[in-house]
Amino acid sequence: MIDKLAINTLKINSISAINEANSGHPGIALGAATMMHTLFSKHLNFDPKNPKWINRDRFILSAGHGSALLYSQLRLLGLISKSELKKFRKFNSITAGHPEYNLNKGIESTTGPLGQGLGMAVGLALAEESLRAKFKEINHYVYVICSDGDLQEGISYETLSFAGKNNLSKLIIMHDSNDCQLDTSTNLITNENLKLRMKSIGFEYILVKKNTVKAIDEAIIKAKKSNKPSFIEIKTIIGHGSSKQGTSEVHGKPLGDDIENVKKTLNWNRDGYYIPKKVISLYEKTILKRSREAFNKFKPSKELNEYLKNKPIKIEIEIEKNIATRASSGEVIKYLNKNRNNWIGGSADLSSSTKAIGGDGIFNINNKKGRHILFGVREFGMGAIANGMALHSNLKPFVSTFFVFSDYMKPAIRLASIMKLPITYVFTHDSIYVGEDGPTHEPIEQLAMLRSVPNLNVLRPSDEKEVKAAYEIAYNSKLNPTAIILTRQNIISLNETSKNKMKKGYYNLIKNNSKWTLVSSGSELANSLKIGKELNLNVVSISNFNGNITWDVSKAISIEAATTYGMNRFAKYNIGINSFGESGPGEKIYKHFKLDKESLKKRILKIIK
Amino acid sequence: MIDKLAINTLKINSISAINEANSGHPGIALGAATMMHTLFSKHLNFDPKNPKWINRDRFILSAGHGSALLYSQLRLLGLISKSELKKFRKFNSITAGHPEYNLNKGIESTTGPLGQGLGMAVGLALAEESLRAKFKEINHYVYVICSDGDLQEGISYETLSFAGKNNLSKLIIMHDSNDCQLDTSTNLITNENLKLRMKSIGFEYILVKKNTVKAIDEAIIKAKKSNKPSFIEIKTIIGHGSSKQGTSEVHGKPLGDDIENVKKTLNWNRDGYYIPKKVISLYEKTILKRSREAFNKFKPSKELNEYLKNKPIKIEIEIEKNIATRASSGEVIKYLNKNRNNWIGGSADLSSSTKAIGGDGIFNINNKKGRHILFGVREFGMGAIANGMALHSNLKPFVSTFFVFSDYMKPAIRLASIMKLPITYVFTHDSIYVGEDGPTHEPIEQLAMLRSVPNLNVLRPSDEKEVKAAYEIAYNSKLNPTAIILTRQNIISLNETSKNKMKKGYYNLIKNNSKWTLVSSGSELANSLKIGKELNLNVVSISNFNGNITWDVSKAISIEAATTYGMNRFAKYNIGINSFGESGPGEKIYKHFKLDKESLKKRILKIIK
Repeated sequence: MIDKLAINTLKINSISAINEANSGHPGIALGAATMMHTLFSKHLNFDPKNPKWINRDRFILSAGHGSALLYSQLRLLGLISKSELKKFRKFNSITAGHPEYNLNKGIESTTGPLGQGLGMAVGLALAEESLRAKFKEINHYVYVICSDGDLQEGISYETLSFAGKNNLSKLIIMHDSNDCQLDTSTNLITNENLKLRMKSIGFEYILVKKNTVKAIDEAIIKAKKSNKPSFIEIKTIIGHGSSKQGTSEVHGKPLGDDIENVKKTLNWNRDGYYIPKKVISLYEKTILKRSREAFNKFKPSKELNEYLKNKPIKIEIEIEKNIATRASSGEVIKYLNKNRNNWIGGSADLSSSTKAIGGDGIFNINNKKGRHILFGVREFGMGAIANGMALHSNLKPFVSTFFVFSDYMKPAIRLASIMKLPITYVFTHDSIYVGEDGPTHEPIEQLAMLRSVPNLNVLRPSDEKEVKAAYEIAYNSKLNPTAIILTRQNIISLNETSKNKMKKGYYNLIKNNSKWTLVSSGSELANSLKIGKELNLNVVSISNFNGNITWDVSKAISIEAATTYGMNRFAKYNIGINSFGESGPGEKIYKHFKLDKESLKKRILKIIK
Repeated sequence: MIDKLAINTLKINSISAINEANSGHPGIALGAATMMHTLFSKHLNFDPKNPKWINRDRFILSAGHGSALLYSQLRLLGLISKSELKKFRKFNSITAGHPEYNLNKGIESTTGPLGQGLGMAVGLALAEESLRAKFKEINHYVYVICSDGDLQEGISYETLSFAGKNNLSKLIIMHDSNDCQLDTSTNLITNENLKLRMKSIGFEYILVKKNTVKAIDEAIIKAKKSNKPSFIEIKTIIGHGSSKQGTSEVHGKPLGDDIENVKKTLNWNRDGYYIPKKVISLYEKTILKRSREAFNKFKPSKELNEYLKNKPIKIEIEIEKNIATRASSGEVIKYLNKNRNNWIGGSADLSSSTKAIGGDGIFNINNKKGRHILFGVREFGMGAIANGMALHSNLKPFVSTFFVFSDYMKPAIRLASIMKLPITYVFTHDSIYVGEDGPTHEPIEQLAMLRSVPNLNVLRPSDEKEVKAAYEIAYNSKLNPTAIILTRQNIISLNETSKNKMKKGYYNLIKNNSKWTLVSSGSELANSLKIGKELNLNVVSISNFNGNITWDVSKAISIEAATTYGMNRFAKYNIGINSFGESGPGEKIYKHFKLDKESLKKRILKIIK
């Protein structure tokens, strides 16, 4: 009875806010309110007074379009005010169209792009396993509500398969199974047997046919007991109570006058934002009391407190000269493995090529302290899992693949950039110098793709000094993800490069009285420097793609083994590659594109004369 | 016996070429030669004299790193010469590192980026179903060889789930199941039950434990009889015969001297490129004879011949003024539905928003003539399926989603651009004007991302005239994919825009004697034009992002509701958005970013004064 009242309060608050915004998704609010309430009242450990407590249960609304329901729930915990809820989807409001990462308000993650919430939840569960192995006092669950759409995205397969293999048993997914999606009913899109699907990847599958508190509660209890990750399929009716219930029409449009039908069904005679006192006191007696007690009981060990300190790093090692920057990078990663226990990561089945290997051995069920993660050939999943790990607390995840496959990860990189998570992307095999693998494996436009993402650091170091700078920037960053772009081939170490200068942004390698400036990064910096010396030109490193332009752009030439798209900002004249690559030995391809020193010098002479 | 000889020939030719290139993947060549030979000798209908015959069986090597094996097989059919094979992975060779789409040489698709070959095969199978429903003489299979890596990619789940739902029973996948991948053994990456996985999505699953011609042949026969798509898991030994067989070490490095061990195991006493006459005659008696007969028997109907004519289109319809460009686009799509039967497509569960709806009803098992494809929330899969459809013959696929989710499709867009496939991407909700859905749904950097992809047309029409031009460019394109970027909100139709001028590239809306030029596209063109008139400035449309710059860039201002990254090429001064978006009503967000007419005029005045 009181549960019903709470659920109705959630429903009415949500659809009122959606009506007021004249925008939003009533379908899920009416369909998933029961599971949301059951989770929060009966299971979730989350103290609104200490929303950043490291041992809280995490809740991710992967179906981010259900934001109104989340805000309504958070209102019942006192984290969101009535006026904030009433500003739903209005400009400059914390109750944004989709949930936006905001721990102080109890919003654990930005969600909305489908499938990624599931991936981030897997990352959170991985973080919990990893930290629990080190700090016995860590012990919590990760809950998710996901939609049919989430489960159609390939990333759901990638990340749940990863969770199954790695036995992330604290992960509990509730599926709002309403047989409807935006355009059509779900049975027009898929005929899959979810039970078999989940069993095939090592999940506990639990079906809840009745959308009741009791049934859902029992399912969650069962899930908690399982030694596998759990998937609870809960059959619901989209837009329950509306005249369009059970159809796609109620998915994404405000109810308008139809709200009256819902109110009638629910026997709701009060204002749309009314909260019965009984409901408040229900939550006081359940989640608030339970979580406050858990919080008070929690005693962080010295080691945990140590881990929680965010100590910056200085990379102080000698690295061999003239080696591939992926090799220098491998050395720095080893240094970080040794010196920072919150540094954790791996690659998408390419560690032997990218040299990105985490510390303390491979993470698996027998070695949960291992910080080398085998992500498998699941680049996008890897990106989302990294986001989840970074969301957990103080972990600094790094992930790695060939630069060209940053394409597969783009949506996760974007979300990291929106949330400003300090993730390090280690992208190797950075140009047509890759050679034999041919155009499918040769990045051209990827530099432009990443440089145009807001909040993302893009670093393309030229030698071991700049590599060290890159990792100091990446590791010490608090509000930016960082992409470090590295060569497969050996490079030439330069006397003129500087770790400290690189850390600040663009900098001069040669500054003289010439009118002309060569602007370059990464593996092309060595030839640019040689030619600069021979022709007495200025040379600037843009290996760190940040800073102020201090040279005369109208008398500058940019040189990169990549698209020239975007380079006009730095130089009127642009040398690069505006077609796809070729298959053949790297050096030959480099020559073919006239990036070898001799060709380059000719091209430069032609411009400046 | 003779089969064995053929298989050994394939193996030895492959690893010899890899050794000669000093680059390549011997593991799959030695492991998958038996299935390749079985398929080609016993089943594939493919006449090397008529490699473009529309009714040939299609074979996709999704595990593109097995290219040497494919080239060796094609050599045995007379399509690739010894000297071409010896140039494996050398510069300027058709035997590139990964297979490169080349129908004359029997290479059906560019592959390499894992998972996408599976998706393209699904597209080919969809095309076959669709065409068979219309032209009874069409009837062929689509075969794939895929690897463990292919199956870990999320796109494998997306596209196979689609194939299962749509009963694409002509699709037959052979899985080179060798329990090994690049970094490790596969059991460290996944514990999935493949049989359950495939059954869960409606596939026929067949296990072949013995890697023999007989067992594989029987499995293919069974698969052909099934009324579902089939997945044949064939247990193999990676690098069979090498001293490192069964380990990841033999995956991606040439064998070197270890080749002698293989030769010994296989009793091979001849040169590494030797082809026994018996083997040639085996293929003459099997695939060549069989396929030639099938080819000779094939009589295309008048209707099929009609379909095969690539008739260009002129869009000659009246479209209401001042409506959202997504709405104009919807009208043009209807026109194309009616006038071109090779126009086929749909959206990733967003047709009600993107207005991209194919003709003749929804494609499904009861309406295979339907040209409206329900792709589901599977953007990346949709992109790869479109590639497959375009690869089939003369289909012109269009696919659609919100512009921001082009991120999810990027790897497929890149592959379409590499292969130069004429696909139309319909991307709506193109800017922060989307509003309420917030930053996760508001494109910022996507324009730059796509404009920097080689071979890709990027069009952002401002009104219904430019929309018509965009579709004429897209549909009539033979060697380019085209992205059409459209608004959610209503726009203002302009007298000065021109369908014909837009088709040629950048063009002037106002050309007068001012030194200053405003450069703009899409929804920002209307305000730019108004201000241009008021201030007597030149105004250029870059809605079609092609052409020559004829204005003074140093006195130009670019105006787009998108990142300014890349805009310096067009204008020294750039107005745009270099942060993520905001949640709130579209108009308000537009004002917030100072893109409304009043703010814009102020900003322009500040620059030009």
